Amino acid sequence: MRSAVAAVPDDVHAAFVKTLLSSDQIVVAGRGRSGMVGAAFARRLGQMGLRAWGLDDSTVPRLGAGDALVACTGSGTTPTVLSLMDTARSGDARVLAVTLKPAVADLRADVTVELDVPAGSNIFPLGTLFEASLLAYLDQVVVDLIDALGATESELGARHTNLE
Amino acid sequence: MRSAVAAVPDDVHAAFVKTLLSSDQIVVAGRGRSGMVGAAFARRLGQMGLRAWGLDDSTVPRLGAGDALVACTGSGTTPTVLSLMDTARSGDARVLAVTLKPAVADLRADVTVELDVPAGSNIFPLGTLFEASLLAYLDQVVVDLIDALGATESELGARHTNLE
Amino acid sequence: MRSAVAAVPDDVHAAFVKTLLSSDQIVVAGRGRSGMVGAAFARRLGQMGLRAWGLDDSTVPRLGAGDALVACTGSGTTPTVLSLMDTARSGDARVLAVTLKPAVADLRADVTVELDVPAGSNIFPLGTLFEASLLAYLDQVVVDLIDALGATESELGARHTNLE
Amino acid sequence: MRSAVAAVPDDVHAAFVKTLLSSDQIVVAGRGRSGMVGAAFARRLGQMGLRAWGLDDSTVPRLGAGDALVACTGSGTTPTVLSLMDTARSGDARVLAVTLKPAVADLRADVTVELDVPAGSNIFPLGTLFEASLLAYLDQVVVDLIDALGATESELGARHTNLE
Repeated sequence: MRSAVAAVPDDVHAAFVKTLLSSDQIVVAGRGRSGMVGAAFARRLGQMGLRAWGLDDSTVPRLGAGDALVACTGSGTTPTVLSLMDTARSGDARVLAVTLKPAVADLRADVTVELDVPAGSNIFPLGTLFEASLLAYLDQVVVDLIDALGATESELGARHTNLE
Repeated sequence: MRSAVAAVPDDVHAAFVKTLLSSDQIVVAGRGRSGMVGAAFARRLGQMGLRAWGLDDSTVPRLGAGDALVACTGSGTTPTVLSLMDTARSGDARVLAVTLKPAVADLRADVTVELDVPAGSNIFPLGTLFEASLLAYLDQVVVDLIDALGATESELGARHTNLE
Repeated sequence: MRSAVAAVPDDVHAAFVKTLLSSDQIVVAGRGRSGMVGAAFARRLGQMGLRAWGLDDSTVPRLGAGDALVACTGSGTTPTVLSLMDTARSGDARVLAVTLKPAVADLRADVTVELDVPAGSNIFPLGTLFEASLLAYLDQVVVDLIDALGATESELGARHTNLE
Repeated sequence: MRSAVAAVPDDVHAAFVKTLLSSDQIVVAGRGRSGMVGAAFARRLGQMGLRAWGLDDSTVPRLGAGDALVACTGSGTTPTVLSLMDTARSGDARVLAVTLKPAVADLRADVTVELDVPAGSNIFPLGTLFEASLLAYLDQVVVDLIDALGATESELGARHTNLE
């Protein structure tokens, strides 16, 4: 998983982080386990003080110019995620895609991160390695966002919900 | 359901609405069907431009002074909801409770709305009438909030998510 | 809301109930507030002992022959819901649609329930009246399913989760 | 993360897997990011043909004798999770806990897996390393369950939802 993260080209990674930093509202979308990992990423974004939502959150906003959709799809073919990417683009929101390398097709995203996960010949079923790599990649994005924002762990902790 | 809403005393209802209007962050909590209705209320709060979350949303914040927890519990005994009410109070957040009349116990909320739903002798199982009355009550709160905020339906529509 | 329910033609309602009774697996789908109401319906189906899921549940299954998708869309145009309806049909699952009357288009569902909700000139914003009517309609379906199954409220209560 | 998984004693791990295999119904619970990882685990359990739910799923059942609650809490002090563990025990369900090593207190679980995650002095904020280790551990449990059940990846794929 670490190697999948390390293999993301620096300029692609920098563009991913920079787009998030310059976005007013961020929605993280995926279906199934990718969506669950995406929600975990949204949670950290909120703890950093960014305005973020998971796709299935109650108060997910309209995305438009100045906003960003993070679309997580290992297969690159999840129909509802592709539909949401179209909608976001129509509203002039930026689209950041995270998918498996090599991407099955041009996802027409502003930034496409391809995670280099070995396919087949592993003991983990279905998209397990993609999802684990997705979590590792997005957690690295969190580290770089914290660094760029000059945030501290105690600031994040202070925003961590007490409603648990 | 309409009569359950109409039977809420004016001063209690006014206090409920006023607390929401003066809150910085609002989290709506409930378990099961009450929680689903609560999430639907949170959605409207967000469309009005208020900072609101359902309990299970990815980015639910820490609640403290100046914030409000809306706790929906027909039985008034849902353990995790009671636990969250304690937590919110400990953090100096206001607590708004919606429950069945008569409340089983003092929920120690800042405002307690009791919905007068006929118990037993109806064809609808379990808490169905409470949940329907809860939706009707919270939708009335939405109408009064819109009025107080001078919001228009088109403004709400403009904030309605396009990610569907 | 009651009148919206009462206005559903008997044969359409009977077909809706009958399809659910003959389905192996049932998934209830909608986006936003319609999806939340749909999840509340799924919850009751589970308490009746039927195998049911809301769309966003962790373990939502593959739908195929013998299964049913309940698609809730007031507008009749929600892109991701239409996409799911296509997918369900491709897998030979039955599709039950609930929408506003008159339906904007042929939703190509096996059964289409149109709820007759007055449009415009009301104080409730956006789809509020549809969502309330949807809850009322689906709660009526629950009553009729309970009757058909010979279930009792205490049986439902015995299946009500204790994890609250 | 791999080392955290490897450090779980064999007998504890075997008891964790064996309990799941002998459970009629399994609910996976956690709050926040741990809950999201838990939901991802529940999803795989469902794809294996086990009867499983995430805590926030629409149709989460009552747990009793013969059932199991998987409780994920890094801190070991999450109030609502502790409350649910009490409830599950009261209903004679087995409780499987996953927490940070050393556990803060006796969680009174039937099996307690302690993940040995280095605390402090890392770049990842808050519970990130626990959550990543939790995902790695539960994915290893999946591999061992598949092996014990004699399941194949294609069987899992055949149960993977098409509603995406």
